[in-house]
Amino acid sequence: MERMEFAARLRAVRERGPLVQCITNMVTVNDCANILLAAGASATMAHHPLEVADAVAGVQALVLNLGGIDYQEAMFIAGKEANRLRVPVVFDPVAAGFTSLRRETARRLLEEVQFAVIRGNASEIRALAQDKGGGSGVDVSAADAVTESGLPGAAELALALSRRTGAAVVLSGAVDVVAQGERVLFLRNGSPTMARITGSGCMLSALTGAFCGACPDKPFEAAAAAAAAMAIAGEEAERLRLRKGTGNATFRIDLIDSLFNLTEEQITQGVRYEIYQG
Amino acid sequence: MERMEFAARLRAVRERGPLVQCITNMVTVNDCANILLAAGASATMAHHPLEVADAVAGVQALVLNLGGIDYQEAMFIAGKEANRLRVPVVFDPVAAGFTSLRRETARRLLEEVQFAVIRGNASEIRALAQDKGGGSGVDVSAADAVTESGLPGAAELALALSRRTGAAVVLSGAVDVVAQGERVLFLRNGSPTMARITGSGCMLSALTGAFCGACPDKPFEAAAAAAAAMAIAGEEAERLRLRKGTGNATFRIDLIDSLFNLTEEQITQGVRYEIYQG
Amino acid sequence: MERMEFAARLRAVRERGPLVQCITNMVTVNDCANILLAAGASATMAHHPLEVADAVAGVQALVLNLGGIDYQEAMFIAGKEANRLRVPVVFDPVAAGFTSLRRETARRLLEEVQFAVIRGNASEIRALAQDKGGGSGVDVSAADAVTESGLPGAAELALALSRRTGAAVVLSGAVDVVAQGERVLFLRNGSPTMARITGSGCMLSALTGAFCGACPDKPFEAAAAAAAAMAIAGEEAERLRLRKGTGNATFRIDLIDSLFNLTEEQITQGVRYEIYQG
Repeated sequence: MERMEFAARLRAVRERGPLVQCITNMVTVNDCANILLAAGASATMAHHPLEVADAVAGVQALVLNLGGIDYQEAMFIAGKEANRLRVPVVFDPVAAGFTSLRRETARRLLEEVQFAVIRGNASEIRALAQDKGGGSGVDVSAADAVTESGLPGAAELALALSRRTGAAVVLSGAVDVVAQGERVLFLRNGSPTMARITGSGCMLSALTGAFCGACPDKPFEAAAAAAAAMAIAGEEAERLRLRKGTGNATFRIDLIDSLFNLTEEQITQGVRYEIYQG
Repeated sequence: MERMEFAARLRAVRERGPLVQCITNMVTVNDCANILLAAGASATMAHHPLEVADAVAGVQALVLNLGGIDYQEAMFIAGKEANRLRVPVVFDPVAAGFTSLRRETARRLLEEVQFAVIRGNASEIRALAQDKGGGSGVDVSAADAVTESGLPGAAELALALSRRTGAAVVLSGAVDVVAQGERVLFLRNGSPTMARITGSGCMLSALTGAFCGACPDKPFEAAAAAAAAMAIAGEEAERLRLRKGTGNATFRIDLIDSLFNLTEEQITQGVRYEIYQG
Repeated sequence: MERMEFAARLRAVRERGPLVQCITNMVTVNDCANILLAAGASATMAHHPLEVADAVAGVQALVLNLGGIDYQEAMFIAGKEANRLRVPVVFDPVAAGFTSLRRETARRLLEEVQFAVIRGNASEIRALAQDKGGGSGVDVSAADAVTESGLPGAAELALALSRRTGAAVVLSGAVDVVAQGERVLFLRNGSPTMARITGSGCMLSALTGAFCGACPDKPFEAAAAAAAAMAIAGEEAERLRLRKGTGNATFRIDLIDSLFNLTEEQITQGVRYEIYQG
């Protein structure tokens, strides 16, 4: 993936303004809508089982967030309809290993819906790849947190899930791992304060939907570019936080603002990534 | 409607502090509560079918937001009880033309509940007035967006819905159209960034509930004044955005703040409106 | 309770980082998660009846917020499981006296779940203590608002509920009353703008969960320290609001930020409290 490609993917979102449907949780649904609007996309959060098939027919991407477990029936209907209409589907397996209800629902979703991208933290990706429990609520467990020495293992984990599902897999952490087929990319952008707000992960998944909607034939590139855009916006928000002495609430606002104002130059110059050779 | 009347309606909200009940969607429910509090009103978001009749008995206005389609049973119970108790009811037909579930629910609500005010974008008002589909998710469709040359058509659309329902109708867009009976008012305030946050419309509908609650016998004036207050707050937030170089997230905060701090002088001097003569 | 104890309780939250589960309402759920993260705790908002027992097994505290009345089945399951596992449970009886559904649900929760702390406004505490209606939506009714001369009565009310339930009781108002057994503490921190945002109470209840999770054997001290931390953060946010001329939306952001940045010195020096001798 070329350096220019990251900015090109953001440009496509702004030019095409994809409408993205998210079936998601009430905790971060407002943030997900606003990050989509910040990126130049549009948002619909319809989740009623009697209307999601209708809605999917009018959108460019669908995002299923396991935090919206109350709407699991709608997730299956919408996911299958999106597959039928060739609308790309992103899966965020929020807390997939934390409860057996989520583990079971995630397993069934992987069986019945073809995903373009799956994005989660290391505990969540591990829960899907190995079909086992783990994680600390919605957060990564300490044992799963990606360290420099653990990167090859994280890459293998993501690749395993990608091979099993056909999806591009984004394993988010201090270093983000993007994997599909034989390709693995490590992304070294971001800020530690992203873990001190709720919704960093959910927002990235929503944004990944926008990038896929604008570029449905390149899920790997879309996912990598979305992760880079979010992480670079996070770096800008962190600079603002340190300068202003503010906290996590202002950081959240600045994060969305920074994506709103993100330039293609900022991405091209700011992205720090490497291709992993295995 | 006199220029001074707009400020007088805001003053009434602040003096009377109406309690407004919203049955609404999870995407923007927090914003709706905070805009009500910013205006000097109070908010309750109770939506359980077993308690909304109880709640309606204690409030000064009720707002039904079709985005809260999960709570449609509660909407019918609360709407009818509000009619019985002569509590004014505002309807926001969010995405009314986007799915058949919403179209059908909106149609039944119009049949069974008498609304004081109906407020939506052009696609939503068209969906109700002509009982047909349209719209792009929660957004107006490009074909429906109100242009200067399209204003007479928008006025006719709003009047048609008003005549059929008896409600004052607010058709929100670059120019807002407020119509009831034979009266039409064009309101030329607002800012383009309002379309880059989720909740601009929902917040205006909630605020319209507050203005109706403080002034239940004048729905046309209440609706026009609420739209003016919101749009003028939007202009102030836009000035701040341009000066600070911030994005849509800060805009949302500044929008609510601007309403919190809005003076009667700002409204009286800032409102740009004209009476449409047909 | 010693002055140093307030800061020590906050330090424990930051050192132990308890995971707090909230079963709560959609209006303020995002704020509750972010205030927990601001304090150095973690948050999970799982509320599905089929997973809450699983979730409770992995957390250090549980918060039941009556605003999440849609999830009442989950509240009973989670509350009982938390009792079984000796995970402290906080109850926020939002609008407990406003509808008969809430009154009845609150009564049953008090019968079936042992709470470590119950926190509400005067109308809510009165509704529980006297098993009667009252309140103005989610707000305290004018008749119930705590005044200086009404403080002894508020103390008696809180003590009565504490004796009946065994819980520490926090009655929030212009002066906060914390009561358990024979002990009563008056806390004189806070800012009037806290009543102009939605979620001040919900956030304090969530935060109380964090303090209990970090200090499960001292509910009185945990509750008092949480209330002090929140109120002192509110004072800091008020100072910022007056200096910047901002409104309630920025106040909310500054409130969470202020808790994020709150130092132990600020608490120790800022807390204004007295032991009530009855």
